[in-house]
Amino acid sequence: MTFTEKDYINIISYSYIRNAFSMNTLNQNHYAVIMAGGVGSRFWPWSTKDCPKQFLDIMGTGETLLQLTYNRFKKIVPENNIYIITNKAYDGLIRQQLNSITSKQIIAEPMAMNTAPCVAYANAKIQAENPNAVCIFAPSDHLVLKEDVFVTLMTEALQHASQHDQLLTIGIQPNRPDTGYGYIQYHRENDHQIPPFKVKTFTEKPNIELAQTFVDSGEFLWNAGIFTWSCKAIQKAIQTHQPDMAALFEDGMDVYNTPDEAAFIEKTYPLCKSNSIDYAIMEKADNVQVIPADLGWSDLGTWKSLFDVREKNEQHNVIQGNSNIVMNTSQSLILNQDQSKLLVVNGLDNVMIVQTENAILICNMDREQEVKQMVNEVKAKFKDRFS
Amino acid sequence: MTFTEKDYINIISYSYIRNAFSMNTLNQNHYAVIMAGGVGSRFWPWSTKDCPKQFLDIMGTGETLLQLTYNRFKKIVPENNIYIITNKAYDGLIRQQLNSITSKQIIAEPMAMNTAPCVAYANAKIQAENPNAVCIFAPSDHLVLKEDVFVTLMTEALQHASQHDQLLTIGIQPNRPDTGYGYIQYHRENDHQIPPFKVKTFTEKPNIELAQTFVDSGEFLWNAGIFTWSCKAIQKAIQTHQPDMAALFEDGMDVYNTPDEAAFIEKTYPLCKSNSIDYAIMEKADNVQVIPADLGWSDLGTWKSLFDVREKNEQHNVIQGNSNIVMNTSQSLILNQDQSKLLVVNGLDNVMIVQTENAILICNMDREQEVKQMVNEVKAKFKDRFS
Repeated sequence: MTFTEKDYINIISYSYIRNAFSMNTLNQNHYAVIMAGGVGSRFWPWSTKDCPKQFLDIMGTGETLLQLTYNRFKKIVPENNIYIITNKAYDGLIRQQLNSITSKQIIAEPMAMNTAPCVAYANAKIQAENPNAVCIFAPSDHLVLKEDVFVTLMTEALQHASQHDQLLTIGIQPNRPDTGYGYIQYHRENDHQIPPFKVKTFTEKPNIELAQTFVDSGEFLWNAGIFTWSCKAIQKAIQTHQPDMAALFEDGMDVYNTPDEAAFIEKTYPLCKSNSIDYAIMEKADNVQVIPADLGWSDLGTWKSLFDVREKNEQHNVIQGNSNIVMNTSQSLILNQDQSKLLVVNGLDNVMIVQTENAILICNMDREQEVKQMVNEVKAKFKDRFS
Repeated sequence: MTFTEKDYINIISYSYIRNAFSMNTLNQNHYAVIMAGGVGSRFWPWSTKDCPKQFLDIMGTGETLLQLTYNRFKKIVPENNIYIITNKAYDGLIRQQLNSITSKQIIAEPMAMNTAPCVAYANAKIQAENPNAVCIFAPSDHLVLKEDVFVTLMTEALQHASQHDQLLTIGIQPNRPDTGYGYIQYHRENDHQIPPFKVKTFTEKPNIELAQTFVDSGEFLWNAGIFTWSCKAIQKAIQTHQPDMAALFEDGMDVYNTPDEAAFIEKTYPLCKSNSIDYAIMEKADNVQVIPADLGWSDLGTWKSLFDVREKNEQHNVIQGNSNIVMNTSQSLILNQDQSKLLVVNGLDNVMIVQTENAILICNMDREQEVKQMVNEVKAKFKDRFS
């Protein structure tokens, strides 16, 4: 069963009518948490531990992915209700990139952790401030081209979550059997049922045959890692499926949003298991629902996926930087972040060239998945000389 | 008629016997002039006007082409009799690279000129010092792999030139119909005649069909641009074929090797026509003789010719520099002169990558002849920003 255009129009029309009544009055119970903890090693050499992908203008628009994400959520929830959770090491970068952000909005993790502790912590902290909070959790480094659809859909999701004890996810209508994404299988009662739909299973990244079967069945969506729930609903789910972790963060209900919070978290975080929210909660809970969506979405997981979504010139090249000369070259991704070094390219096809101040990567596009091996080679041969 | 191995053995044996008598006593009448005026634009971005090819360690041996050439001639003529003639702008570079050189050995041209004025000037100056001088004129930026053969052959050429009113050239036995070289057609009386042989014609760079005909005929050799003659013989030839130029430089016979030389040359040089010695003299004179030779010679005229003569690794790559990682790559020339920038290459074939502090060139090897167009693009787009 596939989701038709009519379905989208139904949802969006419904939502517009509802929004018309609440124009310019974003709901003070609505929150967004932007998860910005990724270290983005797949975009080496441009992204590094010191400045991961979410802090880069990877789309060449003049705005970093974090800025794009933050500005998108400003249309959905009150700005003061947008939180960014990430390693405390990135505090400076965030303040640099988001001028209007306040200290309260930055949730500092004392160490790199997976998404389960991140959700549990942010959720407990927001709940301590507002027990009626309804919250979106979303990655900081994904692309959403259809922003209007996204704003409408997420507003709708928040409304729905405020009234139902459900964990909502966004599922992307797949247009190809991509093996780089997890899939969500859902059940639709009949053609008249409107979203959200009940989720049957979450699956890890499939092989190509399985991915094709998923796409053909019409029952599977890509897992975009964007969640919406009331703080109460996700708290209950954590208590049920991860009682140890729930207890750890409930201990802090008196100290969140006080000067003692940092010390408490410093002590508590190392006691958590590093676990993804999908594995820890979503795959176990029975009240997970999915909203299918066509958002012009990409997780920008690899250089190739970036190439696919970027605008191309006549020769089908993506070129960024103002000290490049590119001749007789096609189907290539050329990103020059080192304006002090002239880059001249002639007679190539299907390559990616990424230059930073410290390094230049010149790679056949078909090998863009080997970034990890290349970084390992660099570490093995040069240690920290170029990190 | 082709030159057989036996011929070489004859010449070389003959020469060894002769040299045995003069061992360790290089002839004080023997001179060498290294012509180092080239601006080497074909090796951009590595070679630049500030540091042309002859001043680069282009073979990756730890010695520049000038150093290799100078040291080669130290085995043929007394070191003090080796002159380097080039634009005065390169005086500093020469002293830097050749520790033992004296001021007397550097002949400074006030402006970039072609080889005819260069030969006329250096010859007049040497003749003023030693009227019995016999002299080799050779480029500073060519490759000679068979150094022993070269030393023997050039010593022999000097001996011959001291006894004959002839202009000797070295002709390279061609092994392919190369269109990048000029050709010398010679006449051999019979199989017993030993070199040098009378030159019939000099030809400019031919097209591929003509080059093939040349090679097939067995009568043609590559013009290596290496000349040997007595100062008297070439002076006479200049007087005959370029009387104006001869007169200009004869006017200075009293000032050469005195403090007044620089001022005289500053005044005289601009009066010369920019002309090659081949065109001005060699193509016109009837006393030109050629010595065929197999020297492991290349004029290193293009990136591809450099790639061809350099030692390759198992993947048939030439790699230079100590901050490179090269994976899954073959038939490529990778020269990294910027040790502060890591260069990672993965999955390429038949490319050349040349990195300097200011620029990086990434070019299909089949387009290596387009360096000039690329440099023009750079100039058009960036003016002097990266020159």
